[in-house]
Amino acid sequence: MTSQPVSEGLLIGVDAGGTSTRATLLDRSGRCIGYGASGSGNPTSAGPERAAQSVVDAVSRAVAAGGRRLDEVRGITAAMAGHGARGEGGWLADALAGAGIDGALGFESDLLALYYSGASEPEGYAIVSGTGAAVIRVAEGDIDATADGLGWLLGDRGSGFWIGHHVALAAVEELDGRGPATSLTPAVLAAFDIAPGKPLGYGRQVELEALIREIYLHRPVELSRLAPLAFAATDDAVSRRILVEAGELLAKTFTAVHRGTGPLVVGGSVLAQPGVLSDTFSRRIAERDADVQLRLVGDGVVGAAYLALRHAGVVLDAAGHAILSASVAAARAR
Amino acid sequence: MTSQPVSEGLLIGVDAGGTSTRATLLDRSGRCIGYGASGSGNPTSAGPERAAQSVVDAVSRAVAAGGRRLDEVRGITAAMAGHGARGEGGWLADALAGAGIDGALGFESDLLALYYSGASEPEGYAIVSGTGAAVIRVAEGDIDATADGLGWLLGDRGSGFWIGHHVALAAVEELDGRGPATSLTPAVLAAFDIAPGKPLGYGRQVELEALIREIYLHRPVELSRLAPLAFAATDDAVSRRILVEAGELLAKTFTAVHRGTGPLVVGGSVLAQPGVLSDTFSRRIAERDADVQLRLVGDGVVGAAYLALRHAGVVLDAAGHAILSASVAAARAR
Repeated sequence: MTSQPVSEGLLIGVDAGGTSTRATLLDRSGRCIGYGASGSGNPTSAGPERAAQSVVDAVSRAVAAGGRRLDEVRGITAAMAGHGARGEGGWLADALAGAGIDGALGFESDLLALYYSGASEPEGYAIVSGTGAAVIRVAEGDIDATADGLGWLLGDRGSGFWIGHHVALAAVEELDGRGPATSLTPAVLAAFDIAPGKPLGYGRQVELEALIREIYLHRPVELSRLAPLAFAATDDAVSRRILVEAGELLAKTFTAVHRGTGPLVVGGSVLAQPGVLSDTFSRRIAERDADVQLRLVGDGVVGAAYLALRHAGVVLDAAGHAILSASVAAARAR
Repeated sequence: MTSQPVSEGLLIGVDAGGTSTRATLLDRSGRCIGYGASGSGNPTSAGPERAAQSVVDAVSRAVAAGGRRLDEVRGITAAMAGHGARGEGGWLADALAGAGIDGALGFESDLLALYYSGASEPEGYAIVSGTGAAVIRVAEGDIDATADGLGWLLGDRGSGFWIGHHVALAAVEELDGRGPATSLTPAVLAAFDIAPGKPLGYGRQVELEALIREIYLHRPVELSRLAPLAFAATDDAVSRRILVEAGELLAKTFTAVHRGTGPLVVGGSVLAQPGVLSDTFSRRIAERDADVQLRLVGDGVVGAAYLALRHAGVVLDAAGHAILSASVAAARAR
C-alpha cells in the first residue's frame, strides 16, 4: 500500500497493536524527534472508535514530545494486523482529520514493520510469535509470501495460544486418565482457583469437571494466558515437550517460506524468552541454513518509522537505519 | 440417579438427544407398547423450553401410539447428555406436570442408555462418536469411569468435530504451503462456495483468505459438517491418515478406562460408517483384548427403556432385554 510522496513537513509512523499503540514523529533526515504511546489500536479487538482514539492519542503525544504542532504533520503510516492493512481505513482517516491531523494516510502490515525494525535489507524474513504466530518473506522490499497467521482454530502453531492450549490439554488429559502426571496440572487448577475434591458419581474427577466448565466459560484465545506456566515448569517433561514442539512448529512455518538470502527478524513474547523453545527454534533454523542471521526485536516501532519515511520517498540504507533506530531508542527513553 | 420405585401403572423411557427425542411407553412386564419421536430434547443446545416441549411431545405421542392415557403414566426416565443427567431437572418436571403427565421423574446419562441399548450385563463399556466422543466403563450396573467427552476445545478426539477440524486443517495447510496436496482442499472450498482466484498482494492465496473468513464466521463445532468429506475421499492419502488417526484415538480413549470383562457397545455416526476408521478401531480393540465383543447400536432408545424399568424395580436379564429390544423395534416400525 502506498501514498503520494510529500516532500516537506513531518512524518508519523504508528505501530498499532492489540495491547498498545506507539507513534514516532520523524523528520526528513530519518531521525525520530518525538515518541508517544497509548492503548489498543487494533480495530478488530478494540473496536474502530477506541482504536482510532488510541492512534490519535499516540500521534498527539509524539508530536507534543517533539515540541512540534499537529499541523506540521504531512504523512501518517500505520502498521497493524489484518483489517487496516487491507485498506479499509475510513475509521482512522476521519478520526485523524477530526483531531486536526492532516496528511497522507497509508497502511502497512504489522509483520513488515516488525521486519524493518530489525533489517534494512530488501530480502529477508520476519517471524512473530505472541498470542498468534506468522512468518513473512520479504522480497524487493515488500511481503512476497506469508505462512500461518491463520488464527487459533486453524493455525498459530507455536504461538502463546498454542502453548496455553497444550498446557490446558496436558492438565485435562492427566485428570482424564489419558495423559502422564505433570506439574502443569496443579498449576492450571491453581490458575482457575480450583481446589481438589472427591470424584463425581459418574467416574469423573470433580476438578476435571470444574476445569472444563471454567475453560468453556472463556473465549478460546484466552488460553494463551496459561502459556507462562509452561515456561515456568522447566523441570517438567510434559512442559518441556510442549516447548520443544512449539519451537519445532515455528521453525517449520519459517521453512515453508524460506528460499535463501537475508536475515530473519524475530519478534513476539514467545521467542523472546530464553530457554528450550528458542533454543530448539534457533537450532532448527541453523540446520536449515547456517547463514541465516537471527535478529531479535521488541516491537515494530522502528519498522513503522522506516515505512513512514519510505512512503514519503526517504529510503534508508543500513547506516540510515542504525541512526533511525538509535534516535527512536533515545526518544523512547525521554 | 434413582427415583422411588412404583409398583403399578405405565412407565416412560426417553432418549433425549440434540437432534431428536424418542420416547417409549412401557408396561411392567418389560414390553414396549408405544413409541413417539420429536425434535431436540437437549436443554443446552435447544434451550430448556424447547427441549421440555420436545420431551412432552415425544411422551404424548408414545402414549397415544399405545392407545393409553397420559394419567396412566407413573414414572418417566430421561436419558440425556450433561445438564439433565446432573439433576437440575426443574425445567422438565414443570413442563410434564403442565401437560398432565405425572409420576416420578428420573435422569440418566445418555451414555448409560447407549450401553443398555446393546447390553444387559452389569459390567462392560460404551463408546460414542458423533459430533463429540466419549467412553464409559460400567460396573455393578452403573457408570464407574468416563474418558473424554471433554468438548471440541479440550477433547472429543476421533469425533465428527475432530475429523471435520482435521479436514479443514488439511485444506488450510495445503493452501498455506505447509501441507501436502489433497483432494480434501477442493472439496472444502466447494463446501464453502469458494471459487479459485488470484494470489493476494501479500503472498497469500485468495482462496485461503476466503476460507479462513468463512470458518471463523461459524461456531467451531460446525466444522463437524466437513467430516463426511473425509469418509468420501477414500483414495486420498491425507484423508485416509485422518480416518486412521481418528480410529486410533477412539481406541486409545477406550484403553484409558478398560480393565477387562464385558461387551463394548458402540454408538454414533462416526463408528457406524464401515471403512478404514472403524477397521482401525476394531483392530486396536482386538489387540488390546481379543475377548471384547463389539455391539453396534443405533441410539439409546432401548437403554432408556431398560433404565426406566430399572427405576421402577424391574431388572431385566438377557432374555428380558431381548424381548424389550424386539418390542421397541416393533413399536418403532408401526
